[in-house]
Amino acid sequence: MLSNPRADRVRAVRALARRQGREKAGRFVAEGPQSVREAIRHAAAEVVDIYATAEAADRYAAELADAHERRLHVHAVTPEVLAAMVETDTPQGLLAVCRLPQPGTDPLGALLAQAPRLLVLLTHVRDPGNAGTVIRAADAFGADGVLVSEGSVDVHSPKVVRSTAGSLFHLPVVTGLPVEATIERLRAHGIRTLAADGSGQTGLPAADLGPPHAWVMGNEAWGLPAELRALCDDVVRVPIHERVESLNLAMCATVCLWASAGSHGTPR
Amino acid sequence: MLSNPRADRVRAVRALARRQGREKAGRFVAEGPQSVREAIRHAAAEVVDIYATAEAADRYAAELADAHERRLHVHAVTPEVLAAMVETDTPQGLLAVCRLPQPGTDPLGALLAQAPRLLVLLTHVRDPGNAGTVIRAADAFGADGVLVSEGSVDVHSPKVVRSTAGSLFHLPVVTGLPVEATIERLRAHGIRTLAADGSGQTGLPAADLGPPHAWVMGNEAWGLPAELRALCDDVVRVPIHERVESLNLAMCATVCLWASAGSHGTPR
Repeated sequence: MLSNPRADRVRAVRALARRQGREKAGRFVAEGPQSVREAIRHAAAEVVDIYATAEAADRYAAELADAHERRLHVHAVTPEVLAAMVETDTPQGLLAVCRLPQPGTDPLGALLAQAPRLLVLLTHVRDPGNAGTVIRAADAFGADGVLVSEGSVDVHSPKVVRSTAGSLFHLPVVTGLPVEATIERLRAHGIRTLAADGSGQTGLPAADLGPPHAWVMGNEAWGLPAELRALCDDVVRVPIHERVESLNLAMCATVCLWASAGSHGTPR
Repeated sequence: MLSNPRADRVRAVRALARRQGREKAGRFVAEGPQSVREAIRHAAAEVVDIYATAEAADRYAAELADAHERRLHVHAVTPEVLAAMVETDTPQGLLAVCRLPQPGTDPLGALLAQAPRLLVLLTHVRDPGNAGTVIRAADAFGADGVLVSEGSVDVHSPKVVRSTAGSLFHLPVVTGLPVEATIERLRAHGIRTLAADGSGQTGLPAADLGPPHAWVMGNEAWGLPAELRALCDDVVRVPIHERVESLNLAMCATVCLWASAGSHGTPR
């Protein structure tokens, strides 16, 4: 039983709340029963350590049974130790330390080699909740991966991981991509690039979502610059009531991905 | 120029961050340029005071021109005063104090008398961001009103107001409703009640969204209890990939309302 909140091991986990700490250690943290369960089920090879309070180990026995089956060790900790490991107000007594994906030489190329039919490219997304929700929507509506541009929020930050509700472990998330080169590469690969933007001439119901395509989403505040929209095959608008200025990024992506799932006949 | 952060007037605005303070004063606060602009445009008669820093008055001159046109007085305040008035980290230099809606004898009856075609009933919604986003989605997709049950988050709390991005001033939001009686009343009024729930037998694409209907949304954590689902005309599921446990409340409502807007042929 780990009971000293000031132990090196505890500090090492706490350091993963910061980007620098994650990059240095090559690790990140998944908090709470849902994320931990999905990490165990879908990315067991990347799970380094699991920490649980006695109460959580009892309440989430089903989730942890999966861990034992995969020979992952669950460390017992006091509530004080768990609280010291994370910055969340309500950590729910359970977390997993996972390995950061090793940046391969060309992760986007590897994804494209699998002939994806539905992708999302997040450009300069800054809000952790938005990024996480889009990853969750992409997962729910059968996307084959999420691409995240350079200058975006770190998808392995605790807030993003939490917002994905486990989806981060379900589908490839390729980060640090240059926006223009990525749009060009998608197009060269035969993937239609659709800028989701309120300025679009094409309303979502009229958009051609049959062929493989990628939704290109802009920043929360300033949207997609005209020069990026011009690079895309089409600019698509989610039609909304005229009194409303805009949808937020997560809502917009959710509706676009829902529409894509319908067109692709993916499981629904 | 108001320059004393400890003035009674400043404390009076700050007190509106708490539910008790709002109820006592009969006022609430709309922060930031978007909310203030929509309050001025759509609910000028309910705007009591506007406060702006010199910088915000300059930057948001267009928003405030509407105020002057409607003979609303804009009080100049120092950044310290504005910061003392609100709890936000980034108040953007601008806020409006508005009158809380006067609870009429039967606000739901008044709304039903207008023959609404699309409504949302939020039951025991707790998260401010979720409540605000659903109100924004309802507005964007042409709903005629949002109903909020007793035991839900206060829609006039600063976080909800902010999340609605001005939509709170666009459409009727009726609060404090008893869930069962409201479902029964909607049905008696010829409005189909559709429980949005992952357990539904009807997939969203197959749901009958032609007639006037109301989406009934459950709590973020525990969803809709079986006895409430049983009261509704149908239980509708947003189909998602089998590896995904659920959508969050705001995503689910956004997709359902989008589908309703398509069926109703509302402006899109």
